[in-house]
Amino acid sequence: MFEAAEVGRKLAKSDYKAQVPALRSALLAVQQELRQASFPVIVLFAGVDTAGKGETVNLLNEWMDPRWIVTRGYTEPSSEERERPRLWRYWRDLPPRGRIAMFLSAWYSSPITNRVAGRISTAQFDSLLDQVATFERALTDDGAVIVKFWMHLSKAAQKKRLKELEKDPLQRWRVTKTQWKHWAMFNKFVSAADRSIRRTSTDQAPWLIVEGEDERYRTVVVATELLNAIRRGLERNGRPAQSSRSARQKRQKGSHATALERVEQQFNVLDNLDLSQKLSDEEFEKELAKQQSRLNALQRRAGKRGVSTIIVFEGWDAAGKGGAIRRVTASLDARDYQVIPIAAPTDEERSRHYLWRFWRHLSRAGRLTIFDRSWYGRVLVERVEGFATEAEYMRAYGEINHFEEQLVSNGILLMKFWIHISQAEQLRRFRDRTRTSYKRWKITDEDWRNRKQWPEYTTAVNDMVARTSTKIAPWALIEGDDKNFARVKVLRTLVERLERRLKR
Amino acid sequence: MFEAAEVGRKLAKSDYKAQVPALRSALLAVQQELRQASFPVIVLFAGVDTAGKGETVNLLNEWMDPRWIVTRGYTEPSSEERERPRLWRYWRDLPPRGRIAMFLSAWYSSPITNRVAGRISTAQFDSLLDQVATFERALTDDGAVIVKFWMHLSKAAQKKRLKELEKDPLQRWRVTKTQWKHWAMFNKFVSAADRSIRRTSTDQAPWLIVEGEDERYRTVVVATELLNAIRRGLERNGRPAQSSRSARQKRQKGSHATALERVEQQFNVLDNLDLSQKLSDEEFEKELAKQQSRLNALQRRAGKRGVSTIIVFEGWDAAGKGGAIRRVTASLDARDYQVIPIAAPTDEERSRHYLWRFWRHLSRAGRLTIFDRSWYGRVLVERVEGFATEAEYMRAYGEINHFEEQLVSNGILLMKFWIHISQAEQLRRFRDRTRTSYKRWKITDEDWRNRKQWPEYTTAVNDMVARTSTKIAPWALIEGDDKNFARVKVLRTLVERLERRLKR
Repeated sequence: MFEAAEVGRKLAKSDYKAQVPALRSALLAVQQELRQASFPVIVLFAGVDTAGKGETVNLLNEWMDPRWIVTRGYTEPSSEERERPRLWRYWRDLPPRGRIAMFLSAWYSSPITNRVAGRISTAQFDSLLDQVATFERALTDDGAVIVKFWMHLSKAAQKKRLKELEKDPLQRWRVTKTQWKHWAMFNKFVSAADRSIRRTSTDQAPWLIVEGEDERYRTVVVATELLNAIRRGLERNGRPAQSSRSARQKRQKGSHATALERVEQQFNVLDNLDLSQKLSDEEFEKELAKQQSRLNALQRRAGKRGVSTIIVFEGWDAAGKGGAIRRVTASLDARDYQVIPIAAPTDEERSRHYLWRFWRHLSRAGRLTIFDRSWYGRVLVERVEGFATEAEYMRAYGEINHFEEQLVSNGILLMKFWIHISQAEQLRRFRDRTRTSYKRWKITDEDWRNRKQWPEYTTAVNDMVARTSTKIAPWALIEGDDKNFARVKVLRTLVERLERRLKR
Repeated sequence: MFEAAEVGRKLAKSDYKAQVPALRSALLAVQQELRQASFPVIVLFAGVDTAGKGETVNLLNEWMDPRWIVTRGYTEPSSEERERPRLWRYWRDLPPRGRIAMFLSAWYSSPITNRVAGRISTAQFDSLLDQVATFERALTDDGAVIVKFWMHLSKAAQKKRLKELEKDPLQRWRVTKTQWKHWAMFNKFVSAADRSIRRTSTDQAPWLIVEGEDERYRTVVVATELLNAIRRGLERNGRPAQSSRSARQKRQKGSHATALERVEQQFNVLDNLDLSQKLSDEEFEKELAKQQSRLNALQRRAGKRGVSTIIVFEGWDAAGKGGAIRRVTASLDARDYQVIPIAAPTDEERSRHYLWRFWRHLSRAGRLTIFDRSWYGRVLVERVEGFATEAEYMRAYGEINHFEEQLVSNGILLMKFWIHISQAEQLRRFRDRTRTSYKRWKITDEDWRNRKQWPEYTTAVNDMVARTSTKIAPWALIEGDDKNFARVKVLRTLVERLERRLKR
């Protein structure tokens, strides 16, 4: 999930300066409205050290009216606190209706640090996380708006940040041995964070992972999301119709969205891929033969051991999913695999929960199942086309993670490929398909329509990776402009992960 | 929770015969309406062997149109099923929208039997239950109506039933060694059931515990609840206004409710108490001194060991809560306990989640805290007076169980007393208070108003015991018509449980 927050997002100084005044006045305005409202707002900041949690909280307090904001950071529990149930100190600090509370790490801190230090088992960790989710659910059921920001830095970026701070005489005090000790445990920390976010990101209290490297970007993202969350809360609670003001706010909202949207379009997990990577036909043939024979041997072992594999292929129209799938199946015995193409649901499928059609295709042990498009349609095409409401696709991330967790804990190897191509390459392939008679069936009006929604799909893919690329089932992003390169990378990734799985 | 389903509820043959025709035609009518609806209905039956799960399912199939009902029982998983995630076979059997599915035990069966057999740890058990709750939540989020019936028999009633079946040549086949083996493990089974129900009873998919001894009663309860659940589903999904029919149905509903309500009023956890129990003044003084001195010694030990006790007192107006509390505190050092009287919330309290005011009163380790009325107000007075909506008080049972679980797992001893008196005794005490000048302050108009709602409170108390008297925090029901008896029973219960707690 963190790969989507390591792409180097930046907001230009001019954009920042242009936006901040409107953002500040909008925040002040909703804060005033909130004071009359019947619900509190709880903002939680967690994440990597030095990723800007404290700075952002300070700035928000400066931008808004701090008299109606409670801010709480927590250190080791006092003796008073240790004598009571773990959540007692957070209950004590809950804001009344109409106010905003900003919590730093708070109830996530001790589960994560205890897990990283190895003081609790996975089962105990899960149970603490479920307790936290139940706690948050009681609050949102009562009307509270909860927004959770996970401020992220890559391991390298954190190192750079710590070194910079050490050089600055005014900031040096912030870097102690503890910070470097934490840095050394970065991977463990991120792994515990991954599990925490996966198990506690709900449609009512979702996590938002914020790339923390650029101060201007992270500030504007957090402020905008907070503003939108409070507005949604006010609307849900029947905010009085104030047409002139809300029209003004809509315009303001529009303008933030646009600047941020530009950043999201410019910096995202997909555009970080190096699409210039190529493989000559000669190299391709050699590698293909090698990987296919490895795959054949591995799949025979997997079949004997009863280890099933599920492979999901998603990607742009004409990205080459079909070609990649054929290179995988070519090396396998037809009795050992099945390819499930996912198009519009049948009547039977439409009349049940959207995951039903995928459950029914789970194979017996030891087989390989390839989904050509998959359950991710819910958060891609259904989101973009408006077939799924925001509530439905936000809920879907959690439902999908829960589904995949059941697959993986049943011993299934789950692989997810997104094949990426550039817009220019797609256009070239579309034209080629139109011109070549035996390829013409492959291209439809819908493909051209989808192409127009490239920016919306880019946002959806980025969110999908941020919310469902988990430790147990990561996304593999494949550079697809060169078909040779893409096909070999898919095969090699598959072979490596299957090999690792069979070593267990 | 099961004490509320061991009170010997019975429905008279004449009542049964009078009701069944209307109930059957109403069920058929909603089933036809449901066929056009956009959601499925999932009915789950679980519980004690021979408590009537199978019979009820058969009867419902007979009463309704079986073409639109799917019924599924499950035995040991097949090899096909064992090779897939645990929930696969249930996903496969999910009904399409517009249909009803009746599942026997289903996804609850393997967690419970594995726990009873000791094959899984408590943590693993919890994790399976949480998985089940997440599964059900995905279905209800998608619109499904889920109704879960837990069919219960007491250990003695089950033994009687098994012996009867053995004597009947046509039914003898139903009783094998397995049934008697299960019977021998009754207590373990009930303890696992208690935990399952506590962790998976949500406002969207609540459990209903049904007393299974009387066939007529259990049939009418299940049929009525199923009818109401489908109706609520249809209403939520904008059922077309059919004024004449719904007026007729309202009348029918009214008539079932009345007959069932009469049964619920006649048989409930409270009326099962023997209020004639008395203690002479002489015995009282002797016992009081004895228990108070034991309590004093125990509380001093508890204080040193840091074991806190929380005691909740609930009961009818004039039931004698105050007197009982004074007999407890009389033996304690004033620095070691606090009594928290719960009346209307303050402004500060009203502006937060309703549990906030109780969290704030949690004491440091080693103290004793007495709540004179408590968080149970949410499911008693707030329910009866309509201050809490049905959704709110249904949700509250789960929130309260979660709250109490956190107290208990923090090492706190939690005791809950309901002091019961008869309506006649209450009237006597009210009159006495009116006549005696120094007692007059104790009686208000509100007391007289509450008294008129005796039946509504009885139902609320019965539901409260059914849904919150858990293994970790059971309710103690105190016979209160004789004050001597009640005070000593409270003290003795407290002393015994504190003693047991300190042995750990």
